Amino acid sequence: VAQDRLAEKRRCRSLGLATAPFDAEVSGFPRLVKTRFGGFDGRGQRWVHDHAELAEALAELPDPIVEGPVVFRRELALTVARGLDGAMRAFPLAETEHRHGILWRATAPARVTAEQVTEATAIGEALAESLDYVGVLAVELFDTADGLVVNELAPRVHNSGHWTIDGAVTSQFEQHVRAVCGLPLGDPSAIGVSVMVNAVGGEPTDAVLAIDGVHVHRYGKQSRPGRKVGHVTVNAPSLAGAEATAARVAELVQFRI
Amino acid sequence: VAQDRLAEKRRCRSLGLATAPFDAEVSGFPRLVKTRFGGFDGRGQRWVHDHAELAEALAELPDPIVEGPVVFRRELALTVARGLDGAMRAFPLAETEHRHGILWRATAPARVTAEQVTEATAIGEALAESLDYVGVLAVELFDTADGLVVNELAPRVHNSGHWTIDGAVTSQFEQHVRAVCGLPLGDPSAIGVSVMVNAVGGEPTDAVLAIDGVHVHRYGKQSRPGRKVGHVTVNAPSLAGAEATAARVAELVQFRI
Repeated sequence: VAQDRLAEKRRCRSLGLATAPFDAEVSGFPRLVKTRFGGFDGRGQRWVHDHAELAEALAELPDPIVEGPVVFRRELALTVARGLDGAMRAFPLAETEHRHGILWRATAPARVTAEQVTEATAIGEALAESLDYVGVLAVELFDTADGLVVNELAPRVHNSGHWTIDGAVTSQFEQHVRAVCGLPLGDPSAIGVSVMVNAVGGEPTDAVLAIDGVHVHRYGKQSRPGRKVGHVTVNAPSLAGAEATAARVAELVQFRI
Repeated sequence: VAQDRLAEKRRCRSLGLATAPFDAEVSGFPRLVKTRFGGFDGRGQRWVHDHAELAEALAELPDPIVEGPVVFRRELALTVARGLDGAMRAFPLAETEHRHGILWRATAPARVTAEQVTEATAIGEALAESLDYVGVLAVELFDTADGLVVNELAPRVHNSGHWTIDGAVTSQFEQHVRAVCGLPLGDPSAIGVSVMVNAVGGEPTDAVLAIDGVHVHRYGKQSRPGRKVGHVTVNAPSLAGAEATAARVAELVQFRI
């Protein structure tokens, strides 16, 4: 279901969850044309602004689905785990900021109300149960004036949850292993506030290592523009402290597309 | 130097650091007879209470050194790193509790005065500089009425610093790698309060995984009495919280000698 953007949207609707308008529901422009299968990091999708661009995109993108725009205040990401026994635990929500369709920063816990946490957790749990899912599931959400809208699912550990490695009692990776091994799910509580900054097109340099409060991750992958090759997580007791250090980090970390 | 308990003590004295009385300085009983090389976890050492026991121990333990007793209030452990460029950073002190000569629990940051932090850091830095040491160095200390007394050195990452994996911005392992690779040393600050509980003679079970706030480490080693085969680190915002969870953990974790 989560490999097919059409099946994904239909599943959400069947559970009463809001999604972007799609296919027959869409009128007017702009529209977003996406390939149903295999797109990521802004690849396999294209905004179109008139019928000519639409026709071109539909002809060029394989198995296209058309979405209408969603007006959002910001984007949020939920990471939820479901165990073999059906137990579920959600990590604190993260606020995600993208650049050119690629995740740039994630800040967690997000500045949200208790109602939004409840709403997001209910969405994630409904999806995980409906799919009889076991493991870590990421749900990308739009925070809109009418409530939370499901953007996309990632049935796996996900970049938006990497902050948990250094900023939560249990990392999303440990949580996934616990889930699929039938072990008790771990404590998803955040420790302080984390800001994760992605390194795109170039690994974090040694200069970043010299900043206090940072956790530097280099993936050892070959660098090329648009490719995520590392990330840096800043952890601090307060949001203000994390933001200040993250700003210094962001000046040193590449985002090259 | 740190492989030879005699050379170690002489080095400490040459730096003006206090150690247990040893060899010619010792009179009366009890005395502790230790082998100079290769002892650990209470092995290769024996308390003796009269001249007959002393003679027996001296005959049986290879390359013996004799120590007089040190009256201490508690034991502390310092983990300090020195980089290729000579820069040094010390982690917060840990309070260590032993059972039968084997580390049982470490609590960090220790409840110590600023003066004790300064004193301990000065000891660790003097030793690291004197040895032209690069990497992570552990220094076991006795907290006595007359100040800090050096017990033993461990020229490596050490069990007393395992709490840093889950309880400090930079773990002792990352710090060691940074040091030996000539990278900037990382932030040694503690995050909240950690209590590490060693698992001796039996790995931590799944029941421990069900407790919130724990980080479970299983070493995948064959279990036998007296062998450290894992540890559990509890991390919490307050000492009281960490202690409460650590008490639950300690009930479930084996210490079998």
